[in-house]
Amino acid sequence: MLDDIASCSEEGPGVTRLPFTPEHQTAANKIKKWMHDTGLAVHTDAAGTIIGRREGPAGCPTLLFGSHQDTVRQGGKYDGIMGVLLPILALRAIEDLQLPFTVQVMAFADEEGVRFPTALIGPRALAGNFDPTALDLKDQDGISIHEAMADFGLRPDEIESLDLRNTPIIGYIETHIEQGPVLDHKNLPLGVVTAIAGIERHQIILKGNAGHAGTTPMLGRQDSLACAAELVLVAERIGRGTPELIATIGKLDVLPNAVNVIPGEISLILEVRSAVDETRERGGETIIDEMREIATRRSIGFVCHTTYVQPAVPCDIKLRSLLKEAISSHQQQTIELPSGATHDASAMANLCPMAMLFVRCLKGISHTPEEFAEEADMQAAVDSLVNFIKLLK
Amino acid sequence: MLDDIASCSEEGPGVTRLPFTPEHQTAANKIKKWMHDTGLAVHTDAAGTIIGRREGPAGCPTLLFGSHQDTVRQGGKYDGIMGVLLPILALRAIEDLQLPFTVQVMAFADEEGVRFPTALIGPRALAGNFDPTALDLKDQDGISIHEAMADFGLRPDEIESLDLRNTPIIGYIETHIEQGPVLDHKNLPLGVVTAIAGIERHQIILKGNAGHAGTTPMLGRQDSLACAAELVLVAERIGRGTPELIATIGKLDVLPNAVNVIPGEISLILEVRSAVDETRERGGETIIDEMREIATRRSIGFVCHTTYVQPAVPCDIKLRSLLKEAISSHQQQTIELPSGATHDASAMANLCPMAMLFVRCLKGISHTPEEFAEEADMQAAVDSLVNFIKLLK
Repeated sequence: MLDDIASCSEEGPGVTRLPFTPEHQTAANKIKKWMHDTGLAVHTDAAGTIIGRREGPAGCPTLLFGSHQDTVRQGGKYDGIMGVLLPILALRAIEDLQLPFTVQVMAFADEEGVRFPTALIGPRALAGNFDPTALDLKDQDGISIHEAMADFGLRPDEIESLDLRNTPIIGYIETHIEQGPVLDHKNLPLGVVTAIAGIERHQIILKGNAGHAGTTPMLGRQDSLACAAELVLVAERIGRGTPELIATIGKLDVLPNAVNVIPGEISLILEVRSAVDETRERGGETIIDEMREIATRRSIGFVCHTTYVQPAVPCDIKLRSLLKEAISSHQQQTIELPSGATHDASAMANLCPMAMLFVRCLKGISHTPEEFAEEADMQAAVDSLVNFIKLLK
Repeated sequence: MLDDIASCSEEGPGVTRLPFTPEHQTAANKIKKWMHDTGLAVHTDAAGTIIGRREGPAGCPTLLFGSHQDTVRQGGKYDGIMGVLLPILALRAIEDLQLPFTVQVMAFADEEGVRFPTALIGPRALAGNFDPTALDLKDQDGISIHEAMADFGLRPDEIESLDLRNTPIIGYIETHIEQGPVLDHKNLPLGVVTAIAGIERHQIILKGNAGHAGTTPMLGRQDSLACAAELVLVAERIGRGTPELIATIGKLDVLPNAVNVIPGEISLILEVRSAVDETRERGGETIIDEMREIATRRSIGFVCHTTYVQPAVPCDIKLRSLLKEAISSHQQQTIELPSGATHDASAMANLCPMAMLFVRCLKGISHTPEEFAEEADMQAAVDSLVNFIKLLK
C-alpha cells in the first residue's frame, strides 16, 4: 500500500506530494478507498482532512488516529502516510470487535509546510486554533491557500466550524517513523514519545575586521571566522554535555567569503532543542553567554537576536503508559524518547490528550528517497495499536 | 597630483581605473605630462607601459623605478600610482645632478587583474616572460586583451620585442603603500621589503553526515561544521605560533546551510603565506596534517587539493641595504618587512635585482576609498629615493 500511494508523486526521485495538487487528489482517492474497504464512513472536511469513521454507541467519546498525507520534495514513502495507513490496518484486524467508543482515522493535508509558508491548518482547525488570515498566504506561483483549497473542492470559509472542542475525545495517537537513529541504534522496532521538543533559534552576527590576508599580521587580527569557530565548538560541547539538550549550528555565512580576505562578518543561527523547556532555556542562555565572552575576548562585535521560540509539547502520561503496555508484547524493552521534529500531534495537543508511537527507521534517515522502515516493524506497530485499542476498551 | 589623477575614474566611490579604458587614457595623459615636465623623454611601449627616461652617458646601465596606474574597483588613490609619482618627484629634485646611469620611471598598465583574468603583462614582457596566449583572455564583455590593447592604440603583436634581458640594468625599485598595518603600528613612515611572500592555497572538503537537527542525538553526529571549526582554530594557532607564517581561512561554505540540518559538507580554502618558502611549505604541511588527524578522529571525510602555489620573490640584498641607508636620515629605526601582496616587482624580479620601499598607510587599510597615506611620509619617500640615487652614483 505504501508503494502504491508513493506513485502519487511529482516526477523525480523519491516522493513529492504537495497539498491541493493532482498528486494529493490521487492519493486522497486511494486513502478513501482503504478506509471504505475497512468499513469506515469516509468524508473530507472543509480543510481537506480525510476522515474515516467507525461509529461507536450513541453519545460515546471518540478516539483519534492520524498523520499527514503530504511529503517534502523528493522525500520518502513512510513519513506521514504510514501513520494514516497503520491505524486503518489495525481497525481491519478488529472489524468484528465491539468498541465502546468511536474511532476516527485522519489524513491531514499539509504538515510539511513545503508549498505554503504555514502548515497544520487541518489539526489546528479541529483544536479551535485556526487563524483565517493564514488562508491568504501564497505559494511560489502566487496561489493563495484559499484559492488552492477552493480549486481542490474544499470549503475554506467553513474551516472555523470544524472546531471539536465541545466533542468528547479520548485522545489523539499519531504513529510516525522516528526520523532519528535512536531506535535503530538500540535495535528496537517501536518507541513511545515523551514530548515533542521545544525549539529556539538565535541569529548571531559577529563583526570583526576584514583585511588583506597577505598584509595583515596574525597578531592583531579580528578574524570573525576564527571567533565563530570557537562558538561552534561551545554549542557542540554544551549540547553534548547536557542531558536532553540538542544544540546545532546548521547555517553559517561568511562575508566577504574570499580566499584572500580575513572574514569580516559572520552570520550564524544557533538552534537549541529540548523536550524539557527549562533545559532548553537554560541551555540556550549558557551557550549564548559563553559565546558572548569569547567574542568580547577577541574584540569581535556580537549581536544576538532570538528569531523563533516554540515550547515543548508533552505527551499525555496516561496514553503514554497505555502505549508502553501495548507494545510490551513485541519488545521487552519499552523505550521512551523525545520527538525532535514537529508533527500534526503538536497542534492536536491543544484539543485533547495526545501521544505518539515511533517506528524505527533505518539509520534515522528521513526526508530523502532512502527513508526506510521494516515491514515487520510496521506490523508490530499495527499489532500494538490493536493492543492499545483493546486496553482502552 | 594624486587627487588630480584620482579623478580619472569610473563613477562611484573611490577610484575605479581599469586598463585600456577612457579613464586609463586620461590618466596616461597626466602621467606623460608629469614626466615631460620633469625633463624625461616619454614614450608608451607596445604593452601600454608609460616610460619616462632620463638618458645617462652612452652605454651606461639603467636604473628602473615604477609601479602600476590601474586600481581595483572602488579602490584608493595611493595603491600603484603613488609608486609612479614619487620617483618622478625624486628626479625633479635632482634635475641638475649628473648621473652615471640612465633612469627610467614606468607606469605599468595592469597589475590588479580586475578587468582581465591575468595581469602583469607589461613587466613580464620586459623580463622576457610574456605568454602571448594571454592576449586571448577576455573581460566580462567578451573583449580580449589583444582587442582592448589595439583599440587603445597599442601594438600587442610587438610585445615580445620588449624583452630587456640583454640590456644592462642596475635594478628595479618599486615604491608602494604597505597595505598592511605594520608601519602604522610601529609609527614609522617607511620600511624596506625583504621579499614578496609566497602563497599556497589548499581547498579542503569535509564530508560529514547531514541529518535532521531535531532528531539526531548529539552523540554520534558527524557534524562537518564542528570539524571545520577545529580546523579553523588549528590554522589560527599555527599561524600565530610560527614566526613569518600567515595562515588564513577566508572562504568557507556550508552545505546544505539550513537552520535545522546538521551540516553535511564543508568546503574551505586554507591560504598560507610566508616570505620564506621553507616556512610556508612546512607550515602548510603541519596545518594540513593536524587538520587531517582531527577529521579522522571525528569520522569526517577529508580531501585536500592544492590549488595554487606561488614561491616567494626575495628582494636583492644589496639594493635593500642601500634603501635602508637611504631612509636612515628620516627615521632612526630602519625596519624591514615582507610584502604579503604581489606587485609588479614580482615579475620584474625575473629581469633584474629588485627592491621595494613601503610607505605607511593608515591602519593598513587598502583597496577601499578610505586608503590613506600621509603627505609627510610620501615626502620622506621622495627624499629617500633621492638619497638612494645619490648612493648609487
